[in-house]
Amino acid sequence: MSETILPTDLSMNPPAMRDRGAAAQALEDHVLLTELADEVRASVLARGRFRRYAPGAVLSDEEAMVRFVLKGALGTFAAVDFLCLTYFGPGAVAGLEAVGGESRGRVLQVVADAEVFELTARALIGAVGRREAERMLGLSATKRLAETETELTCLATYGIGPRLARWLLRLYALNPGHPVIMSQERLAQLLGAQRTSVNAAAHPLQEQGIVRYSRGRISLLDPGRLAALACCPPENHAPERPAPERR
Amino acid sequence: MSETILPTDLSMNPPAMRDRGAAAQALEDHVLLTELADEVRASVLARGRFRRYAPGAVLSDEEAMVRFVLKGALGTFAAVDFLCLTYFGPGAVAGLEAVGGESRGRVLQVVADAEVFELTARALIGAVGRREAERMLGLSATKRLAETETELTCLATYGIGPRLARWLLRLYALNPGHPVIMSQERLAQLLGAQRTSVNAAAHPLQEQGIVRYSRGRISLLDPGRLAALACCPPENHAPERPAPERR
Repeated sequence: MSETILPTDLSMNPPAMRDRGAAAQALEDHVLLTELADEVRASVLARGRFRRYAPGAVLSDEEAMVRFVLKGALGTFAAVDFLCLTYFGPGAVAGLEAVGGESRGRVLQVVADAEVFELTARALIGAVGRREAERMLGLSATKRLAETETELTCLATYGIGPRLARWLLRLYALNPGHPVIMSQERLAQLLGAQRTSVNAAAHPLQEQGIVRYSRGRISLLDPGRLAALACCPPENHAPERPAPERR
Repeated sequence: MSETILPTDLSMNPPAMRDRGAAAQALEDHVLLTELADEVRASVLARGRFRRYAPGAVLSDEEAMVRFVLKGALGTFAAVDFLCLTYFGPGAVAGLEAVGGESRGRVLQVVADAEVFELTARALIGAVGRREAERMLGLSATKRLAETETELTCLATYGIGPRLARWLLRLYALNPGHPVIMSQERLAQLLGAQRTSVNAAAHPLQEQGIVRYSRGRISLLDPGRLAALACCPPENHAPERPAPERR
């Protein structure tokens, strides 16, 4: 597929080229690929390409694509720029449901500057066989289902404050020690909330010296205190008992 | 497993016995089983049992169980009696994630008087083989993921009114033409809402002659008008554009 090289293709982009070795290594280490025989894994690599996508990009494909996320994050959205339903951070795979012949009808959109390895579902099946592709689908879908159920629990149980804290930590984890580059408007879109609600929730965090906002950059001054305020922390567990309804 | 017969076992219950043929037929026709060779399907049937469960029952198993829902409905919940995350109506299969070795940490609870065919995940793998069990997992998890994403979209986008309408239609579909047997308190629990909110949303439906409540029985007098008020109707599609935020 080298004929489809675009400016975002890592192979065309010198700074990205420097990362290509790391990206390829991340792919080879991917939990869904490690169990494959070497020649099968090589066949997967030969049938796809490394790509970089900018935040906000909507990935709509003519043919169903499977994307291994190596860096940054993608998400499925209820609508363009509205409510991230499923979050695909590093190690997650987007689009595997196409292996089962499902068309999702969701918007796939880039959440944070992303590097992915992508190939068509058809090419993946060609490389690993239908059975193995279905096994990948099963493992991936089960994990995503648990995450989406957690998201649902958060949304029903918690207000915007704890959800904002959780999202900030999630984005921070993509590049720990560095500011999260994201506008409050974009954050509100991810959360499916209004910007005014996010502003109101963000204000006390700044007041308490936990985060600092500055023109689209969000510095986490105290991730530990932020984690204490977040709902459904990284362990992704459901609350022991529901919090009082927020409506 | 005939030694574990309980009063809820269909084989012990004369009225249920009459249904056993229908239940067995529903199982044989199950989408996940139809592709199996006859002897494999027979092996699945030999390793499990038909059970009936009462609404509200919490199914906690020492060993991971897979349950084919033949009638009624089960659900995974965020906590006992709070917020149905995933709904398993007739044709759905609960617990398949155990095939992939996942422990979910969700509460499995009976939503509506249910008839199921159940066997341990280990027995299912023994009957159909690990690969086939993983294929079942993949197909089932993908479908459930799409449904849970829809649930998430509904929760973020719509108020209690459209969500209540959707749930009433879902429960009505289990036994069309008959009243839904469920208290408003229980409905509120399913929705992860407070009873007062559900009462407030239910009142105009009764005023308009769309439903009638009477001591735990909910008659749908006009399912068509109710469907027009429901969010995310049976087609399960996401809204074209988000509705105004309800908070």
